Amino acid sequence: MPELRKDPVVDRWVIFASGRSLRPSDFASASEAENGERPPCPFCYGNEEHTPPELLAYRDRGTTPNGVGWRTRVVPNKFPALRVEGVLERRGEGIYDRMNGVGAHEVIVESPQHDKELSELPVEDVERVLTAYRERMTDLKNDLRLRYILLFKNHGERAGASLAHGHSQLIATPIIPQVITEELEGSRRHFELKERCVFCDMIDHELRGRKRLVLENDRYLSIEPFAPRAPFETWILPKRHVSAFEEAEPGEYRDLADLLKETLARIRRALNRPHYNYVLHTAPCREPRLDHYHWHMEILPKRNPLAGFEWGSGFYINPTPPEEAAEYLRGLAR
Amino acid sequence: MPELRKDPVVDRWVIFASGRSLRPSDFASASEAENGERPPCPFCYGNEEHTPPELLAYRDRGTTPNGVGWRTRVVPNKFPALRVEGVLERRGEGIYDRMNGVGAHEVIVESPQHDKELSELPVEDVERVLTAYRERMTDLKNDLRLRYILLFKNHGERAGASLAHGHSQLIATPIIPQVITEELEGSRRHFELKERCVFCDMIDHELRGRKRLVLENDRYLSIEPFAPRAPFETWILPKRHVSAFEEAEPGEYRDLADLLKETLARIRRALNRPHYNYVLHTAPCREPRLDHYHWHMEILPKRNPLAGFEWGSGFYINPTPPEEAAEYLRGLAR
Repeated sequence: MPELRKDPVVDRWVIFASGRSLRPSDFASASEAENGERPPCPFCYGNEEHTPPELLAYRDRGTTPNGVGWRTRVVPNKFPALRVEGVLERRGEGIYDRMNGVGAHEVIVESPQHDKELSELPVEDVERVLTAYRERMTDLKNDLRLRYILLFKNHGERAGASLAHGHSQLIATPIIPQVITEELEGSRRHFELKERCVFCDMIDHELRGRKRLVLENDRYLSIEPFAPRAPFETWILPKRHVSAFEEAEPGEYRDLADLLKETLARIRRALNRPHYNYVLHTAPCREPRLDHYHWHMEILPKRNPLAGFEWGSGFYINPTPPEEAAEYLRGLAR
Repeated sequence: MPELRKDPVVDRWVIFASGRSLRPSDFASASEAENGERPPCPFCYGNEEHTPPELLAYRDRGTTPNGVGWRTRVVPNKFPALRVEGVLERRGEGIYDRMNGVGAHEVIVESPQHDKELSELPVEDVERVLTAYRERMTDLKNDLRLRYILLFKNHGERAGASLAHGHSQLIATPIIPQVITEELEGSRRHFELKERCVFCDMIDHELRGRKRLVLENDRYLSIEPFAPRAPFETWILPKRHVSAFEEAEPGEYRDLADLLKETLARIRRALNRPHYNYVLHTAPCREPRLDHYHWHMEILPKRNPLAGFEWGSGFYINPTPPEEAAEYLRGLAR
């Protein structure tokens, strides 16, 4: 059973998932060096038995579960950080707190195509990936032990990806993560002061000024945020106030797919195929409708590793003003 | 002039230091590829003119400033994140906040030896480095615009180092960094509840239990913390309650040098010369004596890059329990 531990001073949780010390990538690098052979990709057609049984798959008619013929496929992570079995069982050790690592860890295999980055897929494929996100989030919200569902993507080694085949991941936690707690508190303070959502204010400001605007369509916009942590950090937000990603109308995912695809494609060209993460920031499971919180997606291209100053301060140093990055991205041809 | 910007929702500051887009390392990788030549190391004897004039140097008798003959040398960073000139000038843009990037950014060249990692230097050299930290911190505290002095070390590329010659850095900021604010708040809450310093409680607990203890001497101890972010994260703390690093008695730095050197040496052997960061966590400039805060040093070996889950949650996943890491480090011969 994985274990969750909290730092006794700050709100930082660490997951001890000892099974993950045996991740395939740890051995892959060694065995590749020895014999040059790569293990078969568990996310490609024909290798479905290399993953745990599927939780969800959008399949061609007449195909059978855990065989070929799927378009997007969701499976449990073979080396999960958290596990669905068991009870939380909070307990102490002197000044320290720990609990069982109850949660869920799933992999969304975006398409059968091994080498395609998300922005290279047709828009209907991107829409299907987003729909899979929603379907899994909606299902997991029924488990009352879970407080938050974090949806993210690691693309490339420098972004922490251990497998090359395009995939996203989802980790559901029994605690609301600190990053989200801080956003909820910050946006609540703004609401108490102004009776307005700070993200709605931000959208209004960026659509008027347009200097940090990257792209927009009827329902969504992408911007370089005012204080980006790294060059070309880009956020996508719905224009309409919605707190939770899974509360969007089904038709809205097509517009989102379109904007996400084109935004990623431009970042890809600007930075010459960067490694990147994106993270869905959405409301906690039990509070899907908040006046002060607004779901959004944060895309973070990976350039340099974090250094001591960032670790020790929480400050970031960014050599590229977001206004210049936005202008550059706007200027690229569609 | 660098600019400081705050995210409108969370307490995250970003430094826009456009001069740093021209860091030597950015060009080094390109020019090395072209002609295989490395630029001369600005921290080696004979290249003193490649740095700005020195702020402090411990020198052999009869040597002159900015020439050879120093043992430890402190210079302004040639590509500073923040600058000492100017006024803060806080200003807004709609919902956004910004100010001038007033501060200081200095480099502590630890010794003239290009290839020696800190733990390979004699203990008196390590003590001299620590004394240089203190002397610069004490001097900078006279500048009332500065609220915090962050002392850190990046060793190796994966830890963000752009130069190989052993060095530490110091960045003084006009704002107390979020990481420190959180520690101050967390330790204040503990003090309000218990009338005790949480770090003193931690030290007491670890010295009794000893399962996460790595090393100790009369004045200091090194431990694997209860919830380490990565395998072999190690903290060094003074046994006596002191809030600020620079408030230690001069004689205490010898014991600290001894423990730091031996702790780093064992991590170096355990992980086969890892890249690492260390960061000094100390009290803010204007509050050097706090009942609830206890200075310490956090050493963080670098293994994998941060992935989307860590970025999006503030959770960490660690495959190695600290009890196992501590046992391993204790077992290594001195």
